[in-house]
Amino acid sequence: MLRLYDNLSSGNAYKVRLLLHKLAIPVERIEMDIDRGETRTPDFLAKNPNGRVPALALEDGTILPESNAILWYLAEGTRFLPADRLERAQVLQWMFFEQYSHEPNVATLRYWITHKVEMTAERRMAEPGKRRQGYDALGVMEGHLKDRAFFVGDRLTIADIALYAYTHVADEGGFDLAAYPALRAWLDRVAADTPHIPITQG
Amino acid sequence: MLRLYDNLSSGNAYKVRLLLHKLAIPVERIEMDIDRGETRTPDFLAKNPNGRVPALALEDGTILPESNAILWYLAEGTRFLPADRLERAQVLQWMFFEQYSHEPNVATLRYWITHKVEMTAERRMAEPGKRRQGYDALGVMEGHLKDRAFFVGDRLTIADIALYAYTHVADEGGFDLAAYPALRAWLDRVAADTPHIPITQG
Repeated sequence: MLRLYDNLSSGNAYKVRLLLHKLAIPVERIEMDIDRGETRTPDFLAKNPNGRVPALALEDGTILPESNAILWYLAEGTRFLPADRLERAQVLQWMFFEQYSHEPNVATLRYWITHKVEMTAERRMAEPGKRRQGYDALGVMEGHLKDRAFFVGDRLTIADIALYAYTHVADEGGFDLAAYPALRAWLDRVAADTPHIPITQG
Repeated sequence: MLRLYDNLSSGNAYKVRLLLHKLAIPVERIEMDIDRGETRTPDFLAKNPNGRVPALALEDGTILPESNAILWYLAEGTRFLPADRLERAQVLQWMFFEQYSHEPNVATLRYWITHKVEMTAERRMAEPGKRRQGYDALGVMEGHLKDRAFFVGDRLTIADIALYAYTHVADEGGFDLAAYPALRAWLDRVAADTPHIPITQG
């Protein structure tokens, strides 16, 4: 059976849990306490030297880290990854956008708040920039979704799953989506794709 | 002909130029002056709403942004992207690592120095963290390369091209690779794969 090094508060880990659930693939979940440094122990660093969850242990023991690489691995050949060459590149386009322009801002501010991270001088100084860049990323998404149902093609792909993970809990990071109607309608469409599970479900 | 919205100082853009050169695919290069805000004009934002280079204009006019998504698009079916399902996911694993854990640190410090960016209080406060996280990323690479010639499988893939782009000029960001012998040997191996072009070549 697949084994997932997981964390129930992590949007990156939720992406993987959500796709596994949609694909009805059973998984053994190992909850890692990030706040207590369980992803930075010598034992875990031997599994993922970058010290992060999620990481997926395959049947042969190979450890695959990076949430969006795991999504790609699991989605190949399913309805969640198109066959067309350009659409596949566009799925990656939005997943790289998610990790570079969205997650370091929207997810990081949520993490600082919900995990009650100490607001050092460095974090206080970085907060306004992350707030501005987070809204910039949400604005790019809003513009793209104005005349589209999903990010690539006309159905839900792993690009939507990747972007949904932290966008649907952006309010927990202090982001107000009131001015983003297309984004909110898209959140509803993603949640309506069944089967679905909430971020808190293991 | 393909058209590349490009910048000769950008490692992200160099990734695409290098792969196009290896594949002998001709391209019309449009040099964008980032310092003068040419990637944030209404005209360019209509092409790439995220306001970044590189962006590749395909024959039909479709604009594909995100350097690593462009690499994937161009490499499909070539020697630079494996056919094996796990190896393909591992190529993505390292490309997501590059954009999340490496580029925001190693490339950003190089950008601040080489483009003589004003060192605001926010940037001065962020610098030590980016320095530390940059060395952390280089350390993860060094550990992986200790007993491997390339990042995935036994030959050069787009994972190597993506990571080479900013690692081979890390010294311009003040990073010293003296303590990373496996990394330096890998840089030499990547540069020895012909044909090759330097970052400054259009």
